[in-house]
Amino acid sequence: MPVSEIDRLIQLLARLPGLGPRSARRAALHLIKRRTGLLEPLAQALAAAAQSIRQCGVCGNIDTRDPCAICAEETRDGTTICVVEDVADLWALERTAAFGGRYHVLGGTLSALDGRGPDEINIDALVRRARAETVTEIILATSATVEGQTTAHYLTDRLADCGAVVSRLAHGVPVGGELDYLDDGTLSAALKARRPLES
Amino acid sequence: MPVSEIDRLIQLLARLPGLGPRSARRAALHLIKRRTGLLEPLAQALAAAAQSIRQCGVCGNIDTRDPCAICAEETRDGTTICVVEDVADLWALERTAAFGGRYHVLGGTLSALDGRGPDEINIDALVRRARAETVTEIILATSATVEGQTTAHYLTDRLADCGAVVSRLAHGVPVGGELDYLDDGTLSAALKARRPLES
Repeated sequence: MPVSEIDRLIQLLARLPGLGPRSARRAALHLIKRRTGLLEPLAQALAAAAQSIRQCGVCGNIDTRDPCAICAEETRDGTTICVVEDVADLWALERTAAFGGRYHVLGGTLSALDGRGPDEINIDALVRRARAETVTEIILATSATVEGQTTAHYLTDRLADCGAVVSRLAHGVPVGGELDYLDDGTLSAALKARRPLES
Repeated sequence: MPVSEIDRLIQLLARLPGLGPRSARRAALHLIKRRTGLLEPLAQALAAAAQSIRQCGVCGNIDTRDPCAICAEETRDGTTICVVEDVADLWALERTAAFGGRYHVLGGTLSALDGRGPDEINIDALVRRARAETVTEIILATSATVEGQTTAHYLTDRLADCGAVVSRLAHGVPVGGELDYLDDGTLSAALKARRPLES
């Protein structure tokens, strides 16, 4: 019979993505059994995050400072902006260490189903940045989903007169992927975008 | 590029059962985006749990009081003690509402592999309870695993002279289970323990 404090903890944990009611119960017990090693540090980390984390006014990234560390870093290439849907996508690109420019976080995609229009996501600030700054290329790194591609098309129109090249990520065979398991769309995209072997 | 406070939060979340590094990142972002709705309440719930939750000195259950609500509830049948491995098992049995007696939480099983002997789990207190109280039946509700059954056998020996009947949960076909998918052990146990139909 879980009691009130435990119940409340389980209810809140169950609202995290990836945790259902059963795994939230397991997580709560796991935490309670590790009071000094995990429960108290996590409570402190959450309180610290609530207090210190804010959104970057330039690019929409989250950080403990505004402008965020990426916008503030002067060695990064200010001529290229990579547009992503979400902070998680920014993190994924940063983990590759393959991009040295700046970012713009939309905070979602256009969605007719969910009623999200251009005003609901961080598009106006992107158009202003594209015009005001010395930007030469804008890479649209939205997802290869219907909504991500709709958003990319809309952005291409909006950015048409900003003077910068608008590009998108390549479609193709994922590295390590087997052809046999790929969907037809990816396979035909990879075939269409084939490249001569470099010797 | 997650920064220190975010990194720390992700690291701690990744130590919860059921969350890996990727889902911990998703959970951290989910929390940060819902500061007042989820992040702050969860920080408070964890702090409250750290402060108020303790182990019951009688049965080993966790609660905000000692003795716990189950041990303190006078209407519960004090003649029957159900022995479980973990608090999660106690919660599972309470959810069924099929047991009105008291519990004893071992806090684990005997395990030769992990080097857990009888002194590492809450056995001595159980033997004392079985002797001291007006106990007529002790139900061993340990798991049907090798370690759970080893623990049950050991407990049967230890409780042999306490005067109470020692019983165990029935093995058999799970309700809703299909015979075709059952392992041989369960099926033969169910066959051996067959019962006449009540008309």
